[in-house]
Amino acid sequence: MDMQQIERAMIAHLDNLTKPKGSLGKLETYAVRMAKIQGTIPPRIDKKGVYIFAGDHGITQEGVSLYPPEVTYQMVKNFLNGGAGINALARAMLWDVTAVDAGVAQEFSPQEAAGGANRLIVAKVGLGNKNFYTQDAMSPEELRRSLEGGKKIAEDAQSRGYEMVALGDMGIGNTSTAAALLIAEGFPAEQIIDRGTGIDSATLDHKRRVITEGVRRRGPFKTDLEILQKLGSFDIAMMTGFILGLEDKGIALVLDGFPVSAAAYLAYKLNPSVKDWLFAGHRSHVVGHGPVLAALGLDPIVDLDMRLGEGTGAVIGGYIVELAVRTAREMASFSKAGVSKSETDETSF
Amino acid sequence: MDMQQIERAMIAHLDNLTKPKGSLGKLETYAVRMAKIQGTIPPRIDKKGVYIFAGDHGITQEGVSLYPPEVTYQMVKNFLNGGAGINALARAMLWDVTAVDAGVAQEFSPQEAAGGANRLIVAKVGLGNKNFYTQDAMSPEELRRSLEGGKKIAEDAQSRGYEMVALGDMGIGNTSTAAALLIAEGFPAEQIIDRGTGIDSATLDHKRRVITEGVRRRGPFKTDLEILQKLGSFDIAMMTGFILGLEDKGIALVLDGFPVSAAAYLAYKLNPSVKDWLFAGHRSHVVGHGPVLAALGLDPIVDLDMRLGEGTGAVIGGYIVELAVRTAREMASFSKAGVSKSETDETSF
Repeated sequence: MDMQQIERAMIAHLDNLTKPKGSLGKLETYAVRMAKIQGTIPPRIDKKGVYIFAGDHGITQEGVSLYPPEVTYQMVKNFLNGGAGINALARAMLWDVTAVDAGVAQEFSPQEAAGGANRLIVAKVGLGNKNFYTQDAMSPEELRRSLEGGKKIAEDAQSRGYEMVALGDMGIGNTSTAAALLIAEGFPAEQIIDRGTGIDSATLDHKRRVITEGVRRRGPFKTDLEILQKLGSFDIAMMTGFILGLEDKGIALVLDGFPVSAAAYLAYKLNPSVKDWLFAGHRSHVVGHGPVLAALGLDPIVDLDMRLGEGTGAVIGGYIVELAVRTAREMASFSKAGVSKSETDETSF
Repeated sequence: MDMQQIERAMIAHLDNLTKPKGSLGKLETYAVRMAKIQGTIPPRIDKKGVYIFAGDHGITQEGVSLYPPEVTYQMVKNFLNGGAGINALARAMLWDVTAVDAGVAQEFSPQEAAGGANRLIVAKVGLGNKNFYTQDAMSPEELRRSLEGGKKIAEDAQSRGYEMVALGDMGIGNTSTAAALLIAEGFPAEQIIDRGTGIDSATLDHKRRVITEGVRRRGPFKTDLEILQKLGSFDIAMMTGFILGLEDKGIALVLDGFPVSAAAYLAYKLNPSVKDWLFAGHRSHVVGHGPVLAALGLDPIVDLDMRLGEGTGAVIGGYIVELAVRTAREMASFSKAGVSKSETDETSF
């Protein structure tokens, strides 16, 4: 079946369930999208995992974040020990948790890497990328390894049988890297650099100046790959590779907040068909997130003012897609339940 | 502790968890509200149930709905057999399902009433209420029994150990009843009577005329109870009693769509403190829902364009409150996880 036939068949399936036509609203839209991604009517989501890509960012040397960079490493350990926000959410909604060391500045011991209920994939390209304010963030070879690493992790998702993956980020300084990438891609700086609530005005002015001047120094750019190499980071580039690597795998991907969406925007520029398998899990509190989602043509599933990262918004939004799929699979038809249909397509019972 | 002390203590608890302050956004607001409702820091939600109040509406005699009234009875059987939208959602998120026969026009057999995984509470006040276009919807005695029935079901919720209940509705014609109640309460008819998508213009004009003329004929009204008696229904009045009956029980209640929110508005008029234990699970697609939630000062948790009723929006929104409570209970503190704090209250990692 082609995509139009799948869509028509899935809508026919939904219209035969014991509810007024269309009354599950966006849940029906999500179920149709899953049917198209999977090529299955009705679709199913039995196994799902969140991948949190972690890395350190050279730009922190310019004092753009008030958290010390060690927090990246400490938080990955927190993910593995099950103590982070993403762990509590994942346990409740049955997402597997995998942390990916794309470029954390410290080495994980073999014992740490062994993990327990929560996995660590060590795919380290280096001990943090370089400071784009003073030099290229990485070499072309490091970019290639980051993208390839992401594609391998897409194969991991397939081998684990996931029908849906969520994408999360952890890296002190990653919002500055994401902002730089998007400004280089043509987004206006004032739409993209977050006012935030905790940073004082002087620090914000400094952050804004560092990012825009860093972009100016590294440019002009001839290609999207050059932008990613000169301004990106191992974790964001690896997420870009992961998104691209999901092509033709029948796996849906749910985006989280600003850094993840910057990776998705780069993936979209490199291959516009990535939009076919993306969901926007949520709209975050971060100012620049809305414009990126709009540019991707994605409507966020929830809007809960979250700005934690780690995939926390993605797993909530993705779970609502799972609920959509479950209702589509499990509801009785009118004939099976012995419920009378309306004379017309009425809007509600 | 008084409410202000509970709020301060709960915020202090949240600020000590491994995340930037406030970064879980509305999840933190919901966790604080649950702490205040329960008087527990951190709060917990281990058991929860959705109650779907069903009844038939005399106003259907005027042809305001294109579904035959038997659908109310048929859909309650569908709830008990586990085939409805609410069942699929409740199974996934571990909500117990209880259907309440407040006034269905057919009798359930003892075998049907025995139920299985899904319970039926038979609290029938009558075989459907009267047609408010031609006469009072019910007698004062029937109203009293409806309200008392609802209060008894609030005791059922307490005896089952629920920390949270969701409220759902099933009744052909219940949006017309809900609209009449709200117009009598002073909401402008044009804000409240739904255009919908399936009803044609002639049917909508007819529905609008029946409702506004019915309200005019039954009025003027001296009290909220008189409005509920002359224009209400057994199911909506019983929901009003249920909401009022939750006072001082430490149980949170999550609203669903338009008919449920009309019941909540009446409860609020009778006792304004009900706002303390209400959450708005979602904003439905039904036009009149937004104005009622605004009048109640409630911010809907999700907005998924749903208009099915049955509690389907309530259980999704309520589950997000549960996720908020789980993160608040399960996340590690900075000291326990060995994660460094920021120099200031920074907005994100």
